[in-house]
Amino acid sequence: MNSSIIRYILGHVLKIEGILMLSPCAVALLYGETAGFYYLGVAVLCFVLGLLMTLRRPASQVFYMKEGCAATALSWIFLSVFGCLPFWLSREIPSFTDALFETVSGFTTTGASILSDVEALSHCALFWRSFTHWIGGMGVLVFLLAIIPMSGGSHINLMRAESPGPSVGKLVPKIKSTARILYLIYLGMTVLEIIFLLAGRMPLFDAVCTSFGTAGTGGFGIKNDSMMSYSPYLQWVVTIFMILFGINFNAYYFMLFRNFKKALRIEEVRHYLLIILASTAVIFVGLVRSSLHTADSLRHAAFQVASIITTTGFSTADFDTWSQTAKTILVLLMFIGACAGSTGGGIKVSRVVVLFKTIGKELNSYIHPKSIRKVKMEGKPVEHEVVRAINVYFVTFTLLFCVSVFLISFEGRDLVTNFTAVAATINNIGPGLSLVGPTQNFGLFHIFTKYVLIFDMLAGRLELFPLLTLFHPTLWKDLFTKRAK
Amino acid sequence: MNSSIIRYILGHVLKIEGILMLSPCAVALLYGETAGFYYLGVAVLCFVLGLLMTLRRPASQVFYMKEGCAATALSWIFLSVFGCLPFWLSREIPSFTDALFETVSGFTTTGASILSDVEALSHCALFWRSFTHWIGGMGVLVFLLAIIPMSGGSHINLMRAESPGPSVGKLVPKIKSTARILYLIYLGMTVLEIIFLLAGRMPLFDAVCTSFGTAGTGGFGIKNDSMMSYSPYLQWVVTIFMILFGINFNAYYFMLFRNFKKALRIEEVRHYLLIILASTAVIFVGLVRSSLHTADSLRHAAFQVASIITTTGFSTADFDTWSQTAKTILVLLMFIGACAGSTGGGIKVSRVVVLFKTIGKELNSYIHPKSIRKVKMEGKPVEHEVVRAINVYFVTFTLLFCVSVFLISFEGRDLVTNFTAVAATINNIGPGLSLVGPTQNFGLFHIFTKYVLIFDMLAGRLELFPLLTLFHPTLWKDLFTKRAK
Repeated sequence: MNSSIIRYILGHVLKIEGILMLSPCAVALLYGETAGFYYLGVAVLCFVLGLLMTLRRPASQVFYMKEGCAATALSWIFLSVFGCLPFWLSREIPSFTDALFETVSGFTTTGASILSDVEALSHCALFWRSFTHWIGGMGVLVFLLAIIPMSGGSHINLMRAESPGPSVGKLVPKIKSTARILYLIYLGMTVLEIIFLLAGRMPLFDAVCTSFGTAGTGGFGIKNDSMMSYSPYLQWVVTIFMILFGINFNAYYFMLFRNFKKALRIEEVRHYLLIILASTAVIFVGLVRSSLHTADSLRHAAFQVASIITTTGFSTADFDTWSQTAKTILVLLMFIGACAGSTGGGIKVSRVVVLFKTIGKELNSYIHPKSIRKVKMEGKPVEHEVVRAINVYFVTFTLLFCVSVFLISFEGRDLVTNFTAVAATINNIGPGLSLVGPTQNFGLFHIFTKYVLIFDMLAGRLELFPLLTLFHPTLWKDLFTKRAK
Repeated sequence: MNSSIIRYILGHVLKIEGILMLSPCAVALLYGETAGFYYLGVAVLCFVLGLLMTLRRPASQVFYMKEGCAATALSWIFLSVFGCLPFWLSREIPSFTDALFETVSGFTTTGASILSDVEALSHCALFWRSFTHWIGGMGVLVFLLAIIPMSGGSHINLMRAESPGPSVGKLVPKIKSTARILYLIYLGMTVLEIIFLLAGRMPLFDAVCTSFGTAGTGGFGIKNDSMMSYSPYLQWVVTIFMILFGINFNAYYFMLFRNFKKALRIEEVRHYLLIILASTAVIFVGLVRSSLHTADSLRHAAFQVASIITTTGFSTADFDTWSQTAKTILVLLMFIGACAGSTGGGIKVSRVVVLFKTIGKELNSYIHPKSIRKVKMEGKPVEHEVVRAINVYFVTFTLLFCVSVFLISFEGRDLVTNFTAVAATINNIGPGLSLVGPTQNFGLFHIFTKYVLIFDMLAGRLELFPLLTLFHPTLWKDLFTKRAK
């Protein structure tokens, strides 16, 4: 195994983190907060460490799937561990586990918080929290690919390991320039949202942080009541941008090149929008019936549906008090998740669609045993290997889910709390129901439970296998035997 | 499509049901209960109808998978509808839906009841309730195959549609004589349990009904408190027999032919016993800690674990009041279920084992992309088609589960009730948690919810696809176009 390329990539990741961490320093300077020094110190530490690790270029830049997985998983762990240091050192989050939980929740764009009073945080801490969403949304390694010259085409393995969603057809962009264009679209849309929010008289700091949270489909708010106290206009803007950031970025990519026909033909996007419409409609009817104002009902229904399906996790209402039907729909949406190739989490719409089609195909084979019908997406047959991978993904997801619920059950909370806490973290959403509902937080959990959920957040963001490979004994054997040589 | 063979099979099923329904008549005679006349009347009705339907032998006895599925699904629906008539006509269960629910719950060996006071029922009704478990446990069509001469080897499609579990290797018996031997083993073990129960001074009527419930892994009790008031000895006997009836019957088949080595080598059985041991141990420790007597804790833990994993559903304790860990383990066991080729329900241990191995294989392919390792069971590679079918089964199961939870959420009960009500019916267990806990019943639900759960019980017992094919439009088109010719 090529362990020096992993060291090299990790070094670059640390350097980038060091540079990115200068932005909260700037915020601290602006607001005259002394906490900024901790960010500066950790930024310098990251940069120096990164520099040392990248001094020696690896002899071979070729790497395979296992190096891709290991590099990705370790990068995210490094990012989180170093990223949480300022929170911890500044004592704004006194417990290391809590600081790590918050940072992992940030980078994985989960948005589950252990804080009960976020308004007590300094501006630079709030900024860094939201900024981790923005960084994690598109992915750090994709960023790396976009800016750092690397020879050889095999770093597709890096991108494949980090990008969300199955590679159905050409869903994952293949070329380095694509990565750069995607990042520019991402940046452009974020700026657009900031402008729209400023137009609704949101303060600049709020607008920037909220846009980071929306773009990364993260969900960390800077207010204790998330988005509840903002005006209806601002809530609608966020609703629309959440939906936009949950769309497969390939659609924007095609649009950018004036290929509107191709953009509109993406089957996943159509299903995604249909699910949003249908869920909003059902919840809306329920809310109107329970004597809420019509306009309010529509806004709350649309906001919560968009927030949950895109796995953002902002809230304008305490949906834990809604009807069972509404809650059940939201729980189901948690698992469906956003489109592949977006910044959202969950199982992804395209996977769910393929799974449904597989069932249809199976039923058909009972009626017409001789017909060989392939599962199709966008009119084209989906390769057998992709269908198989989606099935295995689903199975692994479910089993990891069950194991997690079992592990955190030792804490003795109710089943709904355990179930939705795991659902909200593994799908990178944020709030769940009951004790982890939108007005609650994850601070109440035991340290062991928090580490289980940290693992789930990372596993969910990296789509399980890159993280799980770290538990494969052969990987470590390979790593150390090659190093010893 | 060969619709006359379906008619012919349904006719035979009705005739058999008519004959079987004479047994509650005998019980009524013994106890001098007038309710017996309803059973006699319906028995005669079934027999006459069945006779009329089997008068004309079908020209062709060849049938394919679709005929197999349709015949199986329709047989079970016929069985249930006619089987519930005595309950309804005698007004012992005044609502037709409730009577149907109770009968489907009986035949599918679920054991979920809508009755709050079973002790108020007549002896013949109690006997018929428990007897449906015994009939449904091994399956009616298997019985049909065992006693009725039919030409052609294609009726394997009938057996395949009704027998629980994936056909991993030779798990499903292939020949007619095998079906007969399996039924004899089933009968022998039931008699054995009756003897052991009588030895513990259980009244004969109780012993017979309890054994029927155990053998079919059903769970209808004849006491309101299920098995709570019986002596520890009797509870242990039931525990052991539940575990025995959850074992793949092929093990007994091999043992009967003195092939002990082959019987012991069945990998599924070893996993099954291990899961029981581990779960019992964890729950036992929890119960002892919460200051229960050691012997009691062990008995209650073992009983509940055996009852849930075999999907029987008897109870000796109100496990809804146990710790979250214990409850979570029981919920997980609900889904795992018993061995394939047993009378139990659930996903089946062999499927779960294969799914776990698939994940291991997938992880390995990330580390060693070039290695082609096959999933193995009992040292032999599992055919690709079987792995695929198991994956599709799991996906279909999960989606049907989600849809059901969503549909019954309209009733507004809490999430734990909805979730475990569906889990307890689709896995053919009986009791769930919260409002459908072991001391509660399903009578509280709305009529719509009951039909959803009836569907789930049938879908679970027939392993989804035979029932789902009934919803395939082509099936009905085929049926009627051929009939018109």
